[in-house]
Amino acid sequence: MVMLKDDERLDNLLAENLRIIQSPSVFAFSLDAVLLARFVYVPIQKGNIIDLCSGNGVIPLFLSARTKGNIIGVEIQERLYDMAVRSIEYNHLQERLQMIHGDIKEMPKQLGYGKYDVVTCNPPYFITPSKEEINPNEHLAIARHEILCTLEDAVRASSQLVRQGGKVAFVHRPGRLLDIITVMRQYRLEPKRIQLVYPKQGKEANTLLIEAIKDGSPDLKILPPLFVYNEEGEYTAEIRKILYGEE
Amino acid sequence: MVMLKDDERLDNLLAENLRIIQSPSVFAFSLDAVLLARFVYVPIQKGNIIDLCSGNGVIPLFLSARTKGNIIGVEIQERLYDMAVRSIEYNHLQERLQMIHGDIKEMPKQLGYGKYDVVTCNPPYFITPSKEEINPNEHLAIARHEILCTLEDAVRASSQLVRQGGKVAFVHRPGRLLDIITVMRQYRLEPKRIQLVYPKQGKEANTLLIEAIKDGSPDLKILPPLFVYNEEGEYTAEIRKILYGEE
Repeated sequence: MVMLKDDERLDNLLAENLRIIQSPSVFAFSLDAVLLARFVYVPIQKGNIIDLCSGNGVIPLFLSARTKGNIIGVEIQERLYDMAVRSIEYNHLQERLQMIHGDIKEMPKQLGYGKYDVVTCNPPYFITPSKEEINPNEHLAIARHEILCTLEDAVRASSQLVRQGGKVAFVHRPGRLLDIITVMRQYRLEPKRIQLVYPKQGKEANTLLIEAIKDGSPDLKILPPLFVYNEEGEYTAEIRKILYGEE
Repeated sequence: MVMLKDDERLDNLLAENLRIIQSPSVFAFSLDAVLLARFVYVPIQKGNIIDLCSGNGVIPLFLSARTKGNIIGVEIQERLYDMAVRSIEYNHLQERLQMIHGDIKEMPKQLGYGKYDVVTCNPPYFITPSKEEINPNEHLAIARHEILCTLEDAVRASSQLVRQGGKVAFVHRPGRLLDIITVMRQYRLEPKRIQLVYPKQGKEANTLLIEAIKDGSPDLKILPPLFVYNEEGEYTAEIRKILYGEE
């Protein structure tokens, strides 16, 4: 039993029978978040994982199907935090999934330094534009633009939260690859795995997945490319498998 | 008429009826060089282009089919320089292709600063190993290892040779992506286009093509991936087209 508010709806998340509360006017998770949740390394049996800029909790929910460890999600917008909490309860995952309503910049002080095995983050993608250009919907503006959290804020907080040798994984736009690499190295996060996502064959990449290790040695691998749509405009088999668990 | 020495042979370079002198024991060009020569932007009607670490001149020869501009190749190994000169003469391209036998680090002083529209470089890929590990064939060792030229030497020389707004394109291993980006930015070369080459579907990338603009603004694009072999182990159609001009 779940209480849906306004135009919220309860969507299927995965073949794993997870459900997630979404709202077209407030927040709906993106494919990018799902790709990050499947890209990142996670310990299977136990461990402490934290997801920053969690939105409606899609990454913690998705990760709960990949690990038996504890997962914390941090979200600054109360409206999205509230959706995430209710989704976790609906899925009976509150024993090992916890949401924190707060600012990611405060988390290392609040939760402790170097305590997490894995940090994930799907940060706002766009540098804050002028007032005229910004999305008038405040929820979407904060989720999409670097208003409350810049890329550097997110990388710094991740580096402070993760243990030495732990993993930090981000999803972002390929246009920010140089910035993300520069800032990660500045905060002792050595990029180790990159995967590029292309909307279809013959198109430029539009999503970047990157995983770094705290104080890792330099040795970068670039994984096979991922294509989202086939020539007919349908999801490719690899994307269907990620989204729906179809073989 | 061409004078072939020792185990040299005259190979076809392209559908353009170019020929190139190769030698299995001294130097044979790699697919990487050909991919770089086709990846880089070149002005079509005129312009000044310089290729560093030219080897047997494969990149200048290949580029001569894409531009009517002047092309200089720089090679420090006399044996390879000599092969390149004879290939250029065989193809009757000496009017606009010129080889220089020298050290790329000396070229800005020798040829002038900021005079080139395009700089290309297929540098030695491997950080110099210990004496025991190094290839006993001196020609191959110098071409493959950073013995006479480090990545930073090559990027610095490229930055000094190229004009403001001009292009610098390198081919390298993906494992060096972070280094190449860091060093390029250090020398005011802003990476603008990256293309990753994968041996086949489902494998990690093994070649990186990167083009930067001197004093360019940050705006990176990641081009569609390139696959070298198909499932049957044959060159893919896109590679055949690049190598042989087949449609």
